[in-house]
Amino acid sequence: MAEAKVKTPFYVGLVHGPVKDKAGSTVTTSVTNLDIHDISRTCRTFGASGYFLITPLKIQHELVNRILGHWETDKGSLYNPDRSDALAATELVDTIDDATSKIQQKEGKRPLVVVTGAKLVGDGDEKQLAQRAILDQVPIFLLFGTGWGLLASTTDQADFRLGPITSCAADDYNHLSVRSAVAIYVDRLARSLCSP
Amino acid sequence: MAEAKVKTPFYVGLVHGPVKDKAGSTVTTSVTNLDIHDISRTCRTFGASGYFLITPLKIQHELVNRILGHWETDKGSLYNPDRSDALAATELVDTIDDATSKIQQKEGKRPLVVVTGAKLVGDGDEKQLAQRAILDQVPIFLLFGTGWGLLASTTDQADFRLGPITSCAADDYNHLSVRSAVAIYVDRLARSLCSP
Repeated sequence: MAEAKVKTPFYVGLVHGPVKDKAGSTVTTSVTNLDIHDISRTCRTFGASGYFLITPLKIQHELVNRILGHWETDKGSLYNPDRSDALAATELVDTIDDATSKIQQKEGKRPLVVVTGAKLVGDGDEKQLAQRAILDQVPIFLLFGTGWGLLASTTDQADFRLGPITSCAADDYNHLSVRSAVAIYVDRLARSLCSP
Repeated sequence: MAEAKVKTPFYVGLVHGPVKDKAGSTVTTSVTNLDIHDISRTCRTFGASGYFLITPLKIQHELVNRILGHWETDKGSLYNPDRSDALAATELVDTIDDATSKIQQKEGKRPLVVVTGAKLVGDGDEKQLAQRAILDQVPIFLLFGTGWGLLASTTDQADFRLGPITSCAADDYNHLSVRSAVAIYVDRLARSLCSP
């Protein structure tokens, strides 16, 4: 993949399991075509070094590999080469730790594991996160949870908790889709990470 | 819908037709379930007063009305009431002018029609747009095009052209999905529009 113009590398991970469901139980959600597609494009546009789809379900791995392979080798990719290129840095792993290890192998340093969530108490905002990572010259690994969000065990172990996206609705409605949330956080982060 | 905490009302419109296709021809694209769903949630979270799905195709109207009705009245809505509420301010119209008229009827003023596009030369950024609308106390109507974007005839007639989202990829890859683009622009706009 072409070298990005960022001051320190960043990666995005979409966690399908373990996450919480509506009742607070631990589940694994299904990977969707559009989560792969949309978030790959977001990552690609903002210079992410990689996008990890994280799911331990082997049956999902088959679907995802087909999608990742489909766009790249099928005649489907002939219609829209931009879509094929968007998936070039997207890969599939079983766990968050697998993704973190891969980043460490690639970058020579363990990344700052950063979590997000609508109800999370933040350690700071995107600018503070970027400043810290740039200063320490470490990569950022930005995790998002599907379903009803990441488990407390995941967020507690993280190096940095990003403040939630604040609602501007009078009733505080705050239910962005994960695709939209990723776009927003990555755009905000890129503001500090992207070299002019 | 609950009153928003914004300094001036804003609306979002997703134009399915007329837009450009890959070859530059004028087309109408299909409305997708996730465009309705994701963008409704984005609008709702950031205090938009309404979200217009714009398509002249009557056959699409049937699908869209079913989706808008489904979430609100079907037992499908029992599982996730948040989704139902997200669609409360989403409506379907034939043309951009229809939407603009509805806004004018509701707000008593014609809105500032604002366009976006990856290749558009901007009049300014979201902060400047917000300042102008707040000063003049007019609503904002933020238009997005599906397919390969809004027609030149649409963007030329607009009151304000928002600068494009800048790529941070070394090869300038810039192909965000419309769902992601809406989330980013609305988040940026809300920064100036949302009362603390």
